[in-house]
Amino acid sequence: MTEYTAPTRDMLFTLQQTAGFGDMVNQCGFEDATEDLVSAIIDEAARFSGSVIAPTNSTGDRTGVALDTNHTVKTPEGFRDAYQQYAESGWASLQFDPEYGGQGLPFSLAIPVQEMWHSANLAWGLCPLLSQGAVEALSENADDALKQLLLPKMISGEWTGTMNLTEPQAGSDLSNIRTQARRDGNAYRIKGQKIFITWGEHDMADNIVHLVLARLPDAPPGVKGISLFAVPRFIPDATGEPGERNDCYAVSLEHKIGIHASPTCAMSFGDNEGALGYLVGAENQGLACMFTMMNNARLTVGLQGVSISERSYQQTRAYALERTQGTAPGDSGASPIIRHPDVRRMLMTMKTLTEAGRALAYTGCVAVDFGKSEKVTESAAARQARRADLLTPLVKGWCTEIAQEVTSLGIQVYGGMGFVEETGVAQHYRDARILPIYEGTNGIQALDLIGRKTIRDNGQAMLELIEDMETCSSTDSQASALSGERQARFNQAVKDLKKATELVLESKDDPLQSGSIAFSYLMLTSTVTAGWLMAKSAALASETLKADDPLVRGKLATADFYMDHILPRSATYLANLHAGNESIMALSETEF
Amino acid sequence: MTEYTAPTRDMLFTLQQTAGFGDMVNQCGFEDATEDLVSAIIDEAARFSGSVIAPTNSTGDRTGVALDTNHTVKTPEGFRDAYQQYAESGWASLQFDPEYGGQGLPFSLAIPVQEMWHSANLAWGLCPLLSQGAVEALSENADDALKQLLLPKMISGEWTGTMNLTEPQAGSDLSNIRTQARRDGNAYRIKGQKIFITWGEHDMADNIVHLVLARLPDAPPGVKGISLFAVPRFIPDATGEPGERNDCYAVSLEHKIGIHASPTCAMSFGDNEGALGYLVGAENQGLACMFTMMNNARLTVGLQGVSISERSYQQTRAYALERTQGTAPGDSGASPIIRHPDVRRMLMTMKTLTEAGRALAYTGCVAVDFGKSEKVTESAAARQARRADLLTPLVKGWCTEIAQEVTSLGIQVYGGMGFVEETGVAQHYRDARILPIYEGTNGIQALDLIGRKTIRDNGQAMLELIEDMETCSSTDSQASALSGERQARFNQAVKDLKKATELVLESKDDPLQSGSIAFSYLMLTSTVTAGWLMAKSAALASETLKADDPLVRGKLATADFYMDHILPRSATYLANLHAGNESIMALSETEF
Repeated sequence: MTEYTAPTRDMLFTLQQTAGFGDMVNQCGFEDATEDLVSAIIDEAARFSGSVIAPTNSTGDRTGVALDTNHTVKTPEGFRDAYQQYAESGWASLQFDPEYGGQGLPFSLAIPVQEMWHSANLAWGLCPLLSQGAVEALSENADDALKQLLLPKMISGEWTGTMNLTEPQAGSDLSNIRTQARRDGNAYRIKGQKIFITWGEHDMADNIVHLVLARLPDAPPGVKGISLFAVPRFIPDATGEPGERNDCYAVSLEHKIGIHASPTCAMSFGDNEGALGYLVGAENQGLACMFTMMNNARLTVGLQGVSISERSYQQTRAYALERTQGTAPGDSGASPIIRHPDVRRMLMTMKTLTEAGRALAYTGCVAVDFGKSEKVTESAAARQARRADLLTPLVKGWCTEIAQEVTSLGIQVYGGMGFVEETGVAQHYRDARILPIYEGTNGIQALDLIGRKTIRDNGQAMLELIEDMETCSSTDSQASALSGERQARFNQAVKDLKKATELVLESKDDPLQSGSIAFSYLMLTSTVTAGWLMAKSAALASETLKADDPLVRGKLATADFYMDHILPRSATYLANLHAGNESIMALSETEF
Repeated sequence: MTEYTAPTRDMLFTLQQTAGFGDMVNQCGFEDATEDLVSAIIDEAARFSGSVIAPTNSTGDRTGVALDTNHTVKTPEGFRDAYQQYAESGWASLQFDPEYGGQGLPFSLAIPVQEMWHSANLAWGLCPLLSQGAVEALSENADDALKQLLLPKMISGEWTGTMNLTEPQAGSDLSNIRTQARRDGNAYRIKGQKIFITWGEHDMADNIVHLVLARLPDAPPGVKGISLFAVPRFIPDATGEPGERNDCYAVSLEHKIGIHASPTCAMSFGDNEGALGYLVGAENQGLACMFTMMNNARLTVGLQGVSISERSYQQTRAYALERTQGTAPGDSGASPIIRHPDVRRMLMTMKTLTEAGRALAYTGCVAVDFGKSEKVTESAAARQARRADLLTPLVKGWCTEIAQEVTSLGIQVYGGMGFVEETGVAQHYRDARILPIYEGTNGIQALDLIGRKTIRDNGQAMLELIEDMETCSSTDSQASALSGERQARFNQAVKDLKKATELVLESKDDPLQSGSIAFSYLMLTSTVTAGWLMAKSAALASETLKADDPLVRGKLATADFYMDHILPRSATYLANLHAGNESIMALSETEF
């Protein structure tokens, strides 16, 4: 229905320049990731996403998925074929360990590539997203034998992976998990019910490896008694190929408002003999193992916010250029609606937020690579790791919040036609609505930011970030890209963020206060940080490119727009922070 | 699936006290509208909406509507029965002229009643909404014979009405209308296509009167050449009963993301002999006639924003009280999620915005009654009419914007369960998405506010409103309801609004500028005006009720919350206004 053309120029610039990928590659010794290779990968991913994946998006939404009586899920037309091509072309293995068949490229290089998959088809893209998380969890936590058993097939994309956390009574709070595991020789038997399992069953690959949180009989209560198990749909036989069917089945699919083509399964483990599972990491250390998977998954869910925003923006831009209605200022006769200032305001908001989200997400992902490097000093790596940890809730939280705004504006620009399913712009809006929820709701992200990422290190990571913003804002290059007034506005926002951080640190012994201000703090930090990256992008574009390059024009315009129309939101967030919990908690529960 | 209980206490208080209905009734001589009668009507509407209409809501969403080969639409289970009861109970006639069978009660008394219909079932409620608009257009513009022919049946609810404006090439800009009318004896023959006709075909009533904009052969071009016609589905026979089938048919239904049970028809007029139509008002005066219908329809669409917010809030509150997850500050063991500060923040936002929207909508509607009264001085009536005109885009624009926020928060509080259709909270979110679009997009509302309602009268109506806010904010009663700090914040916001109004008036000869700042001005004026009404509500509740009355506690809490967490948005809107059009218009169309 609608087309998607990856914005490769903006992606490459944002990755290499704004997010500092080029610098990271040099410092961290990723010799293979040359500029030419990076370009070639981005171009090929653009071709594949536009011509193979994107055409499946509308069909998938309309067809959806259904569970048949054999507990199998038939995916919509084109899905399996796209997936097979994806795996055969080596897309699944980009950033993984060559020892298990990976290409050893940086994680952050896979990010623009994945942005394209999610723009092309958010529902489809979830299958690789979850598989990648499972590979990470196994790579970091499994013993060698288990890695040998599972990783080569998963890294090649022949098998996919899932994440089995949620149970009906255990959502945001995993301490309530009831799924049981018992020892059975060298392995374990799993029994229990999981819900909201994304791509828990499907026909795109030969096998599915479920990573399942469960509790051993002698486990301590709460989160300290949770272990992680790998439960393959088909148990690998002696040759490593899918063998006997394991005792784990999808028993129903959710009927959702969006991502219709992504099967969201209720899974039943161990209805018969118990599902065979392999322990991942140590017993009772399951939550920590799962977090190695969850952290990067949070970054890529944030990235999905960028992806769906880009898709909605592209479609809306095309409509606004084509649809005529009314006469815009300075015109005579019918104008394309893009010429009306209020429509232009909406499009600029969509474009600017999308680019800002991209800059934030890429920056967070480059910090992940940096933070893991053994080629830089330990303190440099630690600083970057702190940065990655700090940015993770911002990327997940903010990029998924802006996706709501951008996809809603897409509908608004379309007017009545936007509310009609056939135009397709509504699908992006419906699909986007899951993003602030899964992989930890944005409320959970806010608590993560305020607690683990700010209060726990006494503001160190945040103050380092603020310092970078201050340093950057005092350089000449920065001053040349923004007008004095806009630069002053940005400097004030950085001061506001500093003040807000003090308020947050003061709330450390008052969970009612910190819980009340957490979301505003998340929005404030994100808005200012993304503003910093927009200013940086404009400065870098001006510095490194010719003045008449459209990218320079674009980066200057979106940075200006950001300072004029997006950054001022920080004043509202700061006021909310100052107001604290008083009026939030004033009414008792019964007074609602 | 989900229940709805009308918040009759808040409705009555907001109507009588905040919106000044009691005062209006006295001054305008609506002797019949006694407090007892008003209470009785609200209570009975509450019963009817909760027990008869609300149960049809989920079914309607799931079933939807379909067009059969006879060009008829079968409505979902319970719809026709609910409508028949509605008409038989006299609900359709509350505010209409007794000469044609109406009850002669104030328009604004019908508003809380209609709020309930829309909360109970937004899709169903659209049928009465459109019928009422058609009655208004006929009452104000048709000649006596046509009124006698159509109004009694429409006011009784036996027949319904529609509004046929949009054509594929004529949406926000009606000057492009192509539907043709030709004279045929005393009547006219209509030929053309209309789209997005809400309840254009259905099985709930005996006849449907379409009000159709069309162009006579000798009409001047543009909006000055549009005439309005009444085109009944069945042409009334000599006895006034539905006779011959008219040549107008629904030819297809839209497949929409929400309000599935409301048939949105493409209508074809005059495929055969030409659809018989009766002229409403003078030839070529159609747009003005339609506006008499559209203005009140805009108010009631704004009201729909309040309705769907209330419905989502009620459902979400119930879930937050029942669902346990995690341990809230000060608790031990599992807490209902309402005890978590971030969930409480979301619920308070939902509750406060809903009450603020209600106060704004009711106030606008009471001004409509006031403005039409012949019992008050001409200047008093004119002032109130200006107020009603001024508030109309605020009610339509802001109340439908907040409905997006509130219904989205509803999903967010539900978490993963919110994204699943079965819980029903997603329906409100999908249904709500049409509200910023129909009856003039919110961009059009913003232009209406800035152009017709502010610049055209040189700010008179707005300055009168600001004056009222200033007067109110200096009284003792007001000071007693808000803390000094919050009162100061409100006073500052009023000053900001004054400043913004100056900026708007300065932009009068610069349509690029006024078009660029219009939406921010709409949001700013609404946010401050609704804040005024929240402060007023708190003061009035404190004054008129006992201190331990839950309503006093509630009004104080929501007013405080508003000043702390909603009003600060005005700083952002003002900054956007100050930024003007520069960065909005910086890129050329080809640079997007």
